[in-house]
Amino acid sequence: MPAKENLRPGGRSARVQASVHNAVRSLLKTMDRADVTIPLIAAEAGVTPSTIYRRWGELQELLADVAVERLRPDMLPIDTGSARGDLEVWTEQYCEEMSSGIGRDMMRDVLAAQDNANACKCDAFTREQIALIAERAHARGEAFPDIDAVMDGVVAPIIYRILFGDQPSIERVRDLVTDVLAREPIRQPQPASAPISG
Amino acid sequence: MPAKENLRPGGRSARVQASVHNAVRSLLKTMDRADVTIPLIAAEAGVTPSTIYRRWGELQELLADVAVERLRPDMLPIDTGSARGDLEVWTEQYCEEMSSGIGRDMMRDVLAAQDNANACKCDAFTREQIALIAERAHARGEAFPDIDAVMDGVVAPIIYRILFGDQPSIERVRDLVTDVLAREPIRQPQPASAPISG
Repeated sequence: MPAKENLRPGGRSARVQASVHNAVRSLLKTMDRADVTIPLIAAEAGVTPSTIYRRWGELQELLADVAVERLRPDMLPIDTGSARGDLEVWTEQYCEEMSSGIGRDMMRDVLAAQDNANACKCDAFTREQIALIAERAHARGEAFPDIDAVMDGVVAPIIYRILFGDQPSIERVRDLVTDVLAREPIRQPQPASAPISG
Repeated sequence: MPAKENLRPGGRSARVQASVHNAVRSLLKTMDRADVTIPLIAAEAGVTPSTIYRRWGELQELLADVAVERLRPDMLPIDTGSARGDLEVWTEQYCEEMSSGIGRDMMRDVLAAQDNANACKCDAFTREQIALIAERAHARGEAFPDIDAVMDGVVAPIIYRILFGDQPSIERVRDLVTDVLAREPIRQPQPASAPISG
């Protein structure tokens, strides 16, 4: 249950975090990122700067923390009725979102932090979405590649191209999906009693 | 001749750049990155801060510019006598360098800049190295995949894992190389006069 895992307890600490995150988001709407400072955020959030320093250490870590929350998926992958359809639609949407101005800013913030815990969180969000598509495929009796194969074969090339080049074309994205679905050994969970042919 | 393309003319502008780059590298050896400022760099380089602002706009762009120079390959891929060997050795070394502390810092600086020209340069350096391996393979009469297939199948998964997770294991790196060499359609330049079978 990935959604449950990501719930936060609603205590004081959670309220401080929510209010600081809101302050960052609201400042970023009206100010240039380079002009945002911890004292400004603290004033907007109604906390002391030291609360922020204690919790996040430095501005870049706080920005990464806010960015990763915005990268958290807010919907389940669309169910198109087939594994190929699900993966195609999800991948096209993912590529579009990550290569948008907001997507690039969020990735930049996440990757600029010294600590890569938030970058790992982004990876985990993406894996969860692909695992949901895989689960659905298996429930339909369809084959689906390993999550790692999809990460290496589809997600990594898209992100690499966005970061180091330009947005991959929709044709390229579809080719990546076709390749990963075609080339991977088909591993479908077998009922325990089924004989393994070979 | 990729090496020639990257030569810079030795004029005044080149000397300013070299001295500013040296100043950045020397400050970064003794100071925390967060404490380095444009006035400090200017003092170390013996130029005015406005020279730096005029040329680089802001600190992050200058850091990205210095980082990309450090990411420029300083040697040809090792010739092991076979395409597989060349690609394996190059990939292992690339993965080791990019996942080192210095490699991560350099990538962080390059990716933190708003302008992705330096990120594109990194991509071009990598492509040049792979093109050299491909050229050598073809000269030996060996098959070799498309550069894009190597970028998507080997380079992208390595960089994605370094940025969003951890250093890929040497086994994983070898598997990526094996996969890309095995699955790609073999495209070898044919002499113009050779009949095409099929």
